[in-house]
Amino acid sequence: MEFKVEATCGKTLARAGVLTTPHGVIKTPVFMPVGTQATVKGLSSEDLAEIGAGIVLANTYHLYLRPGHDVIRDAGGLHAFMNWDGAILTDSGGFQVASLAKLREVTDDGVRFTSHIDGSSHFLGPEVAVAIQEALGADIIMAFDECVRYPATYEYVKAANERTIKWAIRCKEAKSREDQVLFGIVQGGVFPDLREESAKALVEIGFPGYAIGGLSVGEPKDEMIVALESSIAHLPEDKPRYLMGVGTPWDFVEAVARGVDMFDCVLPTRVARHGTAYTSEGRIIVRDKPYERDFTPLDPACDCIVCRNYTRAYLRHLIRTKEMLGARLLSYHNVYFFIRFMGDIRNAIVNGTFPQFREDFQKRCGTIGR
Amino acid sequence: MEFKVEATCGKTLARAGVLTTPHGVIKTPVFMPVGTQATVKGLSSEDLAEIGAGIVLANTYHLYLRPGHDVIRDAGGLHAFMNWDGAILTDSGGFQVASLAKLREVTDDGVRFTSHIDGSSHFLGPEVAVAIQEALGADIIMAFDECVRYPATYEYVKAANERTIKWAIRCKEAKSREDQVLFGIVQGGVFPDLREESAKALVEIGFPGYAIGGLSVGEPKDEMIVALESSIAHLPEDKPRYLMGVGTPWDFVEAVARGVDMFDCVLPTRVARHGTAYTSEGRIIVRDKPYERDFTPLDPACDCIVCRNYTRAYLRHLIRTKEMLGARLLSYHNVYFFIRFMGDIRNAIVNGTFPQFREDFQKRCGTIGR
Repeated sequence: MEFKVEATCGKTLARAGVLTTPHGVIKTPVFMPVGTQATVKGLSSEDLAEIGAGIVLANTYHLYLRPGHDVIRDAGGLHAFMNWDGAILTDSGGFQVASLAKLREVTDDGVRFTSHIDGSSHFLGPEVAVAIQEALGADIIMAFDECVRYPATYEYVKAANERTIKWAIRCKEAKSREDQVLFGIVQGGVFPDLREESAKALVEIGFPGYAIGGLSVGEPKDEMIVALESSIAHLPEDKPRYLMGVGTPWDFVEAVARGVDMFDCVLPTRVARHGTAYTSEGRIIVRDKPYERDFTPLDPACDCIVCRNYTRAYLRHLIRTKEMLGARLLSYHNVYFFIRFMGDIRNAIVNGTFPQFREDFQKRCGTIGR
Repeated sequence: MEFKVEATCGKTLARAGVLTTPHGVIKTPVFMPVGTQATVKGLSSEDLAEIGAGIVLANTYHLYLRPGHDVIRDAGGLHAFMNWDGAILTDSGGFQVASLAKLREVTDDGVRFTSHIDGSSHFLGPEVAVAIQEALGADIIMAFDECVRYPATYEYVKAANERTIKWAIRCKEAKSREDQVLFGIVQGGVFPDLREESAKALVEIGFPGYAIGGLSVGEPKDEMIVALESSIAHLPEDKPRYLMGVGTPWDFVEAVARGVDMFDCVLPTRVARHGTAYTSEGRIIVRDKPYERDFTPLDPACDCIVCRNYTRAYLRHLIRTKEMLGARLLSYHNVYFFIRFMGDIRNAIVNGTFPQFREDFQKRCGTIGR
């Protein structure tokens, strides 16, 4: 994998880069749709290619439980399993173990937990997480980390931080595949000094890319920004930075302005299933009554197939009647919107107009979604 | 609308025809996928066009309740509402009133019933059913009928039959749009003399096409076949015959052999949602364990996009994890299979090999699904 910064903003830390993977060249900043169970909910791999997604995320925790990483390895890896020729990134399972699993017991060795599906007992640690991710075969894999819930005491976050750093070393040692790259994950909660400590330690170990984890877990936006800044300040400029699980268009603009290159979030598909669409005129809850006879496209400024072919009234009807097609079409549009929005951000950086883009966006972001 | 028989079998009553509608030319025998709520569950209009569906069905009862036929009329009709350029057939609501609605009260005037959604009170009769269908704007609309549940007494079926005939006259009189055609519906339960009576009375009134209703509602297959034969024996050869709500591939072969031209059924999409696929080698329950590591296509003999791009193992995983994409892809394949199967039947009729096709099919129909 190779990463090259092609353009920088100058007035902010925003940069436009190019990430070369074994499965395609990714222009950054990039939004990665989330394919939790080896499928971006509602969308086919053909849809994703049509939308122009270059890279998607899949969840190690979920795929380990079902269908099992050995099944996916036998299929020829995730790319073959889900018929996706683009790039793939897998997380390490650390976040899901913290948020989904029950009866979690954390030791220096790893985490013993019970499955949220059937209560069966499992263990994830740095070596296991790397082995699973090598079986899954994504282009980018993640170090196993302890993702601490918010709020947490300084002492707990500090201890978890130290564990995460030790685990990062063990992940790097455990890694054996040459065609994958391993990113370290900066933790440290909302404490700037712990963020600094984490970032510096990981850079010392040395990774081809760095993720910023443990954010957007309930903390206020201003604390998130501070934690983000304290992390990035200590990361090298020539390596990609990935802000995990974030976020809204507002988050994208502000995080890009602080030097982030990669994002993932379930937001566009999750809100779609409940009838909310992102549009250039703001978010609209298309299931609501005002759209009953609205025979205009979801977003008049959008050229996706949903906006070209279907009306708000039809989409409202599908969502109200709980028809699968409603969630599917809204998911398609929302993912398209997020990817195009990131493309607009990148163009602004390349054209030297990012500060203006940011200012314009801040004026209308109230409706688009902070 | 124009209907022309292009080829007949000679040894059976099977025929290949061409039905010309304002929205395309339909080759018969034809399978019409069911788009209950103005969407074939899980599939987009683009999917349906890609699959090669020439005509789809939509349900008057459901669309009257949600979003309301007036909303669809204001959208420019069903074709515009669901962005479907192919032909559409709407049923009259008679079947759903009998099977879904609660507190049903049938009089000579029509049926008062309460909605299965919210218990609100509604009335459907011949004039209202035609008015709603004119607002929906399908190419083919159906006379309002009383669909009797199975089993029912001879006396009840006879009385319902007489009402249905009177309603057929009123529907014909109520119809005002020139760009739609109205089909009559033969009823009469499983009683051959009532089927004859119904068919003769409808032919006397005169319709551009005839449906055979009230079958596949729980009666044994042999009784269905007798009722079908007693209906068709009295229908004109130069008009299309539509067997409502039927059925399986076995039903198609046997009904075509008896002179049926049109079919609709929710079967391919309904079983898909539960993980069952129709294949040339028989039905398979792809959610079952044996397919866990089956990295072959759903149907090796199928060239649909699902069989070209995805494996049984992946589809099993999607169905097990309740991912929308699983139901969507299986629905796509099953509808494709049904339409291609009907195409094979038609080719056999045109090539004069239908009796052989039927015999070959009977040998393997145990696995394909009687």
